[in-house]
Amino acid sequence: MDVAPAGTVAEPGITPDELRLAARNHATPLEALRHEITPPGLHYLLIHYDIPAVEPEGFQLEIGGAVERRMTLTLDALKERERVAQPITFECAGNGRALLEPRPVSQPWLTEAVGTAEWGGTPLAPLLAEAGPSGDAIELLFSAVDRGVEGGVPQAYERALPIGEAAQALLVYEMNGGPLPPQHGFPLRLVVPGWYGMQNVKWLTRITVLEEPFSGYQNAVSYRMYSADGEPGEAVTRMLPRSLMIPPGVPDFLTRVRQLQPGPVTLRGRAWSGHGSIERIEVSTDGGASFSEAGLEPPLGPNAWRGWSFDWEAAPGEHVLSPRATDSAGNTQPLDPRWNLKGFANNAVQRVAVMVAP
Amino acid sequence: MDVAPAGTVAEPGITPDELRLAARNHATPLEALRHEITPPGLHYLLIHYDIPAVEPEGFQLEIGGAVERRMTLTLDALKERERVAQPITFECAGNGRALLEPRPVSQPWLTEAVGTAEWGGTPLAPLLAEAGPSGDAIELLFSAVDRGVEGGVPQAYERALPIGEAAQALLVYEMNGGPLPPQHGFPLRLVVPGWYGMQNVKWLTRITVLEEPFSGYQNAVSYRMYSADGEPGEAVTRMLPRSLMIPPGVPDFLTRVRQLQPGPVTLRGRAWSGHGSIERIEVSTDGGASFSEAGLEPPLGPNAWRGWSFDWEAAPGEHVLSPRATDSAGNTQPLDPRWNLKGFANNAVQRVAVMVAP
Repeated sequence: MDVAPAGTVAEPGITPDELRLAARNHATPLEALRHEITPPGLHYLLIHYDIPAVEPEGFQLEIGGAVERRMTLTLDALKERERVAQPITFECAGNGRALLEPRPVSQPWLTEAVGTAEWGGTPLAPLLAEAGPSGDAIELLFSAVDRGVEGGVPQAYERALPIGEAAQALLVYEMNGGPLPPQHGFPLRLVVPGWYGMQNVKWLTRITVLEEPFSGYQNAVSYRMYSADGEPGEAVTRMLPRSLMIPPGVPDFLTRVRQLQPGPVTLRGRAWSGHGSIERIEVSTDGGASFSEAGLEPPLGPNAWRGWSFDWEAAPGEHVLSPRATDSAGNTQPLDPRWNLKGFANNAVQRVAVMVAP
Repeated sequence: MDVAPAGTVAEPGITPDELRLAARNHATPLEALRHEITPPGLHYLLIHYDIPAVEPEGFQLEIGGAVERRMTLTLDALKERERVAQPITFECAGNGRALLEPRPVSQPWLTEAVGTAEWGGTPLAPLLAEAGPSGDAIELLFSAVDRGVEGGVPQAYERALPIGEAAQALLVYEMNGGPLPPQHGFPLRLVVPGWYGMQNVKWLTRITVLEEPFSGYQNAVSYRMYSADGEPGEAVTRMLPRSLMIPPGVPDFLTRVRQLQPGPVTLRGRAWSGHGSIERIEVSTDGGASFSEAGLEPPLGPNAWRGWSFDWEAAPGEHVLSPRATDSAGNTQPLDPRWNLKGFANNAVQRVAVMVAP
């Protein structure tokens, strides 16, 4: 494939290209973390090309490739199958990109490209079993309707997933109890619990069982961790642990620095990981110099973020607040970002600047 | 009032302050202009401080100030009054700010901070008549729940409106047939047809009838057109005419430049004005050097945008497409922006870059 360089880095100021992306895509405002299920319209959005207009009447999902029985399913046929709905948290793989130095040029996310919805649909595994994948099948390719050009390559959005990772995947037609909104993949999308968002293919129209690894752009070029251009890179897969805090007090409009009164304040937030359950949250109120244990709320579900709280005595002056998550696989958030050329999987701890009045 | 300078301008690259605002607030993706009513979650959002959590049970709207009868209304009491719903288009006053040179520092909007919803609620005028404004009343002050610091001034969001402009105003509790989403002002907001969005106060809790002009931040400092710092400035009020096109073809992910095949293509878009109905749309396919007449769709309503279409024969090469709106008051969009210190009301024509294949 003759493609552009895997990534580029930018001068300090955000560029017009990045601004155009930031105007379209949006994060979940941090105060919306108060909701355990993100309300419609507040869930983060990253759309590679345009939101396509898909008519549900003529819609069909095709399942083909290395299978015994090719299948074609209407939306009604999918809705007649077993229905499950569960809260699932996912995050954009590029979350945190704009905090890296030097800054990789793409959607300039800060820390809050995450959301949790009640995703409803039908499990993929039984459908796949009916189609009968060949014994040599190694990947499932999920192909979407939306088209564009990326890295010089005209393409429809397509992402392959190792077939062993598909056990929990859902073919989703509902979000928070209603039909999928257009921007979240109407009429059908994939959701793979635990993975970064690029795997949750929106406007899904075809599943192809592959016996060879997919060499298309989104797997072979785009979603990879490169330490430098020209390297093979490492695939972006499951979410690293991360925690976010609802910023206390009130914001300054322009700087977003928080202003609050001295005295006791309960800090709250949510944390998630694609490698296991959240086992521990610590909070630093001194910019990461020291951390103290926070309290954990009961789990919301096996694939959703977990609430936490921490009682803080706010003393006059400037402070930087940081929560730090550790998951059951033993992964802990780093204090400093791990740089890579395309700016993926930066799960360094959040830093919330607060100014406590005298 | 001891406040910061009215505005500042920035170096070419977008600053971290602007990026934090761009990550929170979002425009309507241009392809969503295909919908005459903007679907939930796609309508633009500009939130000065944080989205507040308002419990509808204890909610009350107070009407006071220079009135004969102070009133207090629950949400249920408001819902028992006359209900009207209509499509209303509004746009952020700062739309187009980031295209100005030098660029005023605030939310860095490009061109698409606009949306049209079916806003449902009860008319303000009969309520106001019941309260009985004094004969010297000149303004209505609308006060909201959300709090923050802006230009150095701690404040709840408040905006005054000349009392003569209130005739068409709605107290809104529904958006597109459902309850207001939290981010659009749940449980109650103001919508004043024809005005820029800053007047459509979200999380409304109090209306105060004033006999003197309001001297608070959002009227006296913020939403004013200044040619330089230290001047009194001119109030931002009704929307100037503007038209936006649904970009044809498919986008490049990073640059958003459109790629399409040669041949006939129907360009479509929508246009609006707060000074009258849209009477004329012209389209330029040569970067504004020449314009040709577009066809107008039937009006959607007196306060909503109007659809238009234009048949274009796309020839190989690079082109810049620009629609230009003229309203019934004779206002026409300029080709170049009119600069002001805080970057308001830039209604210069949109420029859509397209590359037609050989």
